[in-house]
Amino acid sequence: VGVHERPVSDFDLATAVRASGPSSYDAHLHDGWRIGGAVNGGLLISLLGRAIRDTCKPAGHPDPLTISAYYLSPSGAGPATISTSVLRTGRTMSTAQASLFQAVDGAVPVERIRAIATYGDLARLPGEVTTSLERPALPPPERCVGTNTVPEPLRRNAPFLDRLDLRMDPEHARWTIGQPGRRGVIQGWLRLPDREPDPLSLLLAVDALPPVTFDYGIFGWVPTLELTAHVRAQPASGWLVVRHATRNFAGGMLEEDAEVWDSTGRLVAQSRQLARAPRG
Amino acid sequence: VGVHERPVSDFDLATAVRASGPSSYDAHLHDGWRIGGAVNGGLLISLLGRAIRDTCKPAGHPDPLTISAYYLSPSGAGPATISTSVLRTGRTMSTAQASLFQAVDGAVPVERIRAIATYGDLARLPGEVTTSLERPALPPPERCVGTNTVPEPLRRNAPFLDRLDLRMDPEHARWTIGQPGRRGVIQGWLRLPDREPDPLSLLLAVDALPPVTFDYGIFGWVPTLELTAHVRAQPASGWLVVRHATRNFAGGMLEEDAEVWDSTGRLVAQSRQLARAPRG
Repeated sequence: VGVHERPVSDFDLATAVRASGPSSYDAHLHDGWRIGGAVNGGLLISLLGRAIRDTCKPAGHPDPLTISAYYLSPSGAGPATISTSVLRTGRTMSTAQASLFQAVDGAVPVERIRAIATYGDLARLPGEVTTSLERPALPPPERCVGTNTVPEPLRRNAPFLDRLDLRMDPEHARWTIGQPGRRGVIQGWLRLPDREPDPLSLLLAVDALPPVTFDYGIFGWVPTLELTAHVRAQPASGWLVVRHATRNFAGGMLEEDAEVWDSTGRLVAQSRQLARAPRG
Repeated sequence: VGVHERPVSDFDLATAVRASGPSSYDAHLHDGWRIGGAVNGGLLISLLGRAIRDTCKPAGHPDPLTISAYYLSPSGAGPATISTSVLRTGRTMSTAQASLFQAVDGAVPVERIRAIATYGDLARLPGEVTTSLERPALPPPERCVGTNTVPEPLRRNAPFLDRLDLRMDPEHARWTIGQPGRRGVIQGWLRLPDREPDPLSLLLAVDALPPVTFDYGIFGWVPTLELTAHVRAQPASGWLVVRHATRNFAGGMLEEDAEVWDSTGRLVAQSRQLARAPRG
């Protein structure tokens, strides 16, 4: 490793794609990003996001502005392939589609996720900011709740939790001590231990916290049907603040909104997903 | 017209699709649903939603649960074709993709919109409701602001406004009298004059109000890049209440959230779009 070369971060290793054709990529889903039986959905969007970046960058559109992912079947650790296609390229934006496939035991590859995304160049957007949503006030990270407090057996089968440095607001983490607040909110500080945030890692940040159903004392798996993320600005270095909330937990489903602020207080990403509530 | 046959509503006429093959449909974009140079985006999603319904209904999945649409080029009045494909069919849900094309002056058809959607059966969802978001309190419809107050020349070139009965909360409609409230909120009562709401018309309702940029006194066109809508319950008959809000108007773009309640106060649909702000 040369003097100016940084070691590759865990996140960059886990989202690496290798071109195998003009619009096809090989990837590997790492077991270390698994939660229960499936690889974390935010990591998967980041991986698709990297393949789409490779596809759209030559047109001058390296950054995700919006990406919508539909989860078709659970992704397990192991090899995967990604195919991309460009739907439209304009002056300031490109729209592309990507699919992730996995072949299990040599069988025909099964589609795991399909995404559509519009990419552009965040550095070329106008600077004006009229954002009205304010970053929540949190206790400093050292007075927040780490993932080592997540109840067993949740933690035992979630190596993903060791990939992140997450410090949850104690006010909304009382489910970790058996006293769920039942407000449908989880928020905290988030960073990757070996990497600064960038537009791709924001796609991970929007789906990295425990599901808000935990705040209702419900600890089962919450499979995402669909997640759309908007990346609105290049994040500054340092801690992110992430807030997850649901306001419509009904009919066996819930929407989960995520808001991500960078260390300067800029609202850099938003997402919403529709998920299936754990069966009671 | 027989005794038990109702005349077809404007909305049903405008979203009619005619199968031209196993997964292809002919449609017609009606000039009466135009705003400025383009057909209303909510009407277009409803149209795609109807084609997807036709595709997914045989599997027992007639209702949109979530649909994400990416707008590739502006749709004009005139003939259109829609192609659909099923990505996955499970026990309770199907996921499908649809594209709308238009050929202008006999040229090669151009893709206008691509959507992915997951359909299910709203009647079969569990009944429990833990929704925390409350329907806003509005003055009764007769004390709200009709679309006849929308300033000229906005109204002159927007026949779409005559398709709806929209009564805006005067508190958030001061832009109609030159005093924009600058809170990024527009809300009101909404109904189709000749039809009760259903899951498909909720896809129109989420994008039927004027853009929230009007509340900032900015009256230019606000093109949608992407819109995702969740339909969460069968709406009851009667007026809908729709609230549009933006909380992140920055970098020349804005997110716009819509919430739709039915006449019983149930939150029946939510949407979020990413749109480009008018160039100043």
